[in-house]
Parts: sequence; C-alpha cells; structure tokens
Amino acid sequence: MAHLNETTLDSTMLFDGKIIRVEKDTVLLEDGTQTFREVVRHPGGVCVLAITDADEVLFVKQFRYPHRTVTMELPAGKLEYGENPEACGRRELLEECGCRAKQFSYLGKLFPVPAYDTEVIHIYLAKGLEFDAQQLDEGEFLDVERIPLAQAVRMVLSDAYPDAKTQIAILRYFAMDHVKGIVR
Amino acid sequence: MAHLNETTLDSTMLFDGKIIRVEKDTVLLEDGTQTFREVVRHPGGVCVLAITDADEVLFVKQFRYPHRTVTMELPAGKLEYGENPEACGRRELLEECGCRAKQFSYLGKLFPVPAYDTEVIHIYLAKGLEFDAQQLDEGEFLDVERIPLAQAVRMVLSDAYPDAKTQIAILRYFAMDHVKGIVR
Repeated sequence: MAHLNETTLDSTMLFDGKIIRVEKDTVLLEDGTQTFREVVRHPGGVCVLAITDADEVLFVKQFRYPHRTVTMELPAGKLEYGENPEACGRRELLEECGCRAKQFSYLGKLFPVPAYDTEVIHIYLAKGLEFDAQQLDEGEFLDVERIPLAQAVRMVLSDAYPDAKTQIAILRYFAMDHVKGIVR
Repeated sequence: MAHLNETTLDSTMLFDGKIIRVEKDTVLLEDGTQTFREVVRHPGGVCVLAITDADEVLFVKQFRYPHRTVTMELPAGKLEYGENPEACGRRELLEECGCRAKQFSYLGKLFPVPAYDTEVIHIYLAKGLEFDAQQLDEGEFLDVERIPLAQAVRMVLSDAYPDAKTQIAILRYFAMDHVKGIVR
C-alpha cells in the first residue's frame, strides 16, 4: 500500500434518506491493518455571495434545526441529481432571495467535513442583481437581509456568522482585494 | 408557533457509531405543518492555527476517505466527552505535530454543516511553539508540513486547501490584520 492511501474492502449502507445517505465501510490502511470509516454521503451544494450595486451582501436568516438556533447565512442549496452547480446557484438565489444576477463567477470550493462527509460546496459571486418575488419551497421559511460588505466582514471576525460557507465566501472575497499577486 | 422556529415532535435514532450518531426527527414548522429532519450528531471538534516564530503555519497532510484524496489541513481533532476545547486543541497539536505552545488563544467557531449536522468546530491560535516527537494514534497516518503564512493565504485563495476549518482559520487571522476597528 502507498503512503497516505486507503482501500475500500466492504461498504454497508445504513440509512438512505432524503438529504443524506450513511455508510459504514471497512478499509485497508497503509500498514496492512483494517479499520471502519463512517461516511455521510451528500450530493453537494452551492452557495452564492450576492452583492448589490450599493455593496450590500444578501443574507438569509433561518432556523437551523441541528443547532436549535437562527443563523445568518448566504443563500445556498443542495445540488439536484445531475444539476450544473452554476444553474443550482442561480436557482437558489432566485428561490430564496427573488434575485437574478447579470454576472455570476466561480469563487472556489470547500469540504465542510472532510473526515466523514462527502459534501463539496461550490461558491459563486453574483453581481448586477435584479429583484423579483421570493419563490420558497413548501415548508421553507426564511427572511432576506442586506448587510453592507464591510460590516459583514467585521461580523464574521466577531464570530456572529458561524456558518462555514458564509465565512469562507465573505473572507475570500475580502482577502482577494488585499493580497498582492492574486488576480480576481 | 413563533416565526423562524421548529419544535421536535419525535426523534428516532438510526445509527450510533464511533464518530457520529444519525437521527430522523419529526418536527412542527411555524405554519403548523410537520416535516422530517435528518440530523447527524457529532461531539464537536477543535482546530489549531499554529504559527512558528518564522511565520510558518503547521499543516497535516493526510488521506481523507470520503473524498478519496490527500488534503492539507490544520491540525485538528474531535472533542472527547466532556473535554475542554482548549485542552483538546493542545492535545491534538501535541499528538499530530509533536508541538507545545506557550500562547494559545481563541479565534472563533464554525458550524460546518448547519443544515443537517450538530458539529461545532472551535479554532485556536497557537504561538511560541516548542517541538517534540509526534504521538499519533494507532491507525493514524499523516505528514506534518510547514508553509509560510503569506503563501498559505495565497493557497487558500487559489482553492488548494478545500477543508473549511483550514480556510476559515487562515483567512480570519489574515483579515484581522487588514480590517480597521477589529482588535485582535
């Protein structure tokens, strides 16, 4: 076995839900021993940093059941099977914020929990925004808020927005303007 | 029911593993309808941004089974039951990097997947580092690398470090130096 590699010997599906699937896999480690890996399978998601002409960031305020708390997050959603990430981002921005964007560019990706979850979240930057009505799914409740970009950066640093994708999108956009040699 | 709130009506444990527990809960939404929530329960984790006197960041390079890839991440680990987060961070830094820190300060937290996972990751900044031998757990394989801080920021922005906690810790530390009115 190569260094820093693992091989699947067996995989057992434990739960096949609406959002996630859960597996327990038997894997071979590089020293020849075996162990188990608990794996959450998720289709992946898309998050949108949408900035108005007045340099305000669009947030969605919603109840997050696992944490029993209301969070402020960027608009985002789960990829449908076979869906293109940009199409998913544009769809979620329209559904959650009633917003269409003239410019839509890729900012990068994140693995929220590489230890036990397959989810990858793609981040897009949306500008040239035009507003229409929200088109929420049934059973979806959220409020849209606009926060000036400079304030949003300060709020991240003061630990007010714990959501990972929200912190990363805002901080990457901010840092791109402050690092020499990075071309946006 | 209040706006932006949900109440648990029923909770069924589906899987009780070594790392995660998985539940399917029946919840009451604010409009009086019911839905299901799939919830991954995790004890939480700690991540350490350890910076040497030469302004290098300590990384661990390891195979991440869910993504079938090798990643570069900050040293980190799972909270033991009842463990203090700072003690956990110091323990993981010693085990993974053979490193003790004279200064250890709290940088903030993140929710990696607020939609369906209870995990909270606490981030610490470690300075005044002293090095000893790695103390890896059985079945744990990782290499330690040192990357100059300015290069680490560029690597995050060029999408080379997808791990969420790694991006957030590095970018928050970077941004704190570039935002007026934020006191470190």
